[in-house]
Amino acid sequence: MKISELSERSGVPVATVKFYIREGMLPRGQTLSATRAEYGEEHLARLRLIAALADVRGLPLVRVREVLDLVDSPLDDPMETLGRAVGALPPYVEGGRDDYPRAREAIAALDLTYDADFTAVAQLDEALRALDAAGLDASPAVLGRYGDAMRKVAAQEVAPIAGMSPADAVTYAVLGTAMYEPVMLALRRLAHHHLLVERSASAPGR
Amino acid sequence: MKISELSERSGVPVATVKFYIREGMLPRGQTLSATRAEYGEEHLARLRLIAALADVRGLPLVRVREVLDLVDSPLDDPMETLGRAVGALPPYVEGGRDDYPRAREAIAALDLTYDADFTAVAQLDEALRALDAAGLDASPAVLGRYGDAMRKVAAQEVAPIAGMSPADAVTYAVLGTAMYEPVMLALRRLAHHHLLVERSASAPGR
Repeated sequence: MKISELSERSGVPVATVKFYIREGMLPRGQTLSATRAEYGEEHLARLRLIAALADVRGLPLVRVREVLDLVDSPLDDPMETLGRAVGALPPYVEGGRDDYPRAREAIAALDLTYDADFTAVAQLDEALRALDAAGLDASPAVLGRYGDAMRKVAAQEVAPIAGMSPADAVTYAVLGTAMYEPVMLALRRLAHHHLLVERSASAPGR
Repeated sequence: MKISELSERSGVPVATVKFYIREGMLPRGQTLSATRAEYGEEHLARLRLIAALADVRGLPLVRVREVLDLVDSPLDDPMETLGRAVGALPPYVEGGRDDYPRAREAIAALDLTYDADFTAVAQLDEALRALDAAGLDASPAVLGRYGDAMRKVAAQEVAPIAGMSPADAVTYAVLGTAMYEPVMLALRRLAHHHLLVERSASAPGR
């Protein structure tokens, strides 16, 4: 396809496509003439990955490059590859602490295997300390509610990874993690509304 | 309690507490002398709400004020009050479109009652259009996976609202919506990791 079609199918303006090519993030197309290059489905897939991370989720380009590097050159350990790639996604929390007691305690109560270097441990720790500071319930019963729901969702999400190449697994994991988050959070708010409306409609006296 | 204790229990620096008082967001304490004022639990609760929204979730002060106004003066319609208050939370999407076809179709498939003015409808629409642009699966089967999980979570979350005053319901809904989001997202990422480790440990040939 021509660059105009690549732009149209990805929703990324031509000038931005050219920027990603100049920056080495998107490979050049196959040169057909001095002014024309041909792009394939692999260009579209990569451009969609870059656009989802940079434009939709607002990742700094240095983080997008981290993900692309892991797609291009996965590490020997597939779990470490996925962990690092997903670790490039927000929220960005202060790292470098060697211990996350609040998160470790919660993760143990949920009976999850974890790697302390995984950024989600630091993210959970920060989120739990924020609950404590706000005076909100962070008891095992309440956290278990979220843990159970997320385990069920996650089981369906990770299933397709078994048949994938390392590069495809990285792309799938990063895109899936980043792009379904806003969907899930919007649906949670809509479910609150639905349940409150349903309850007030069936309340005694109405 | 003295302002120093208020600061310590909320984790908000004294200078910031004074700023919120000057801005009229936090009521003054009861004056005991020219240099001392006494603060109560209601000051602590309000300060925790402000800090959670402004400092932890990074809401602009104008949005924090919207929430505080709804706590102080709930509208006649409790559902509209909650909808507006939660609507002050991020993500901020372009509003003012009178139709959200992508979201409406998805919400109908999930059989949820909704109010088209509710910001979560616009947020869902934007999130679904981003899935489409990224070439990701936004079929009813996949969205149902998230819808089911969120309905279950939401049912437990809204249950306590029945016994609350309108002001307390607003505080609970806004804090709960905002502060458990990062917890849930971190647990989703941890569940992915757990399930992949578990599966690779039980894979044939290991």
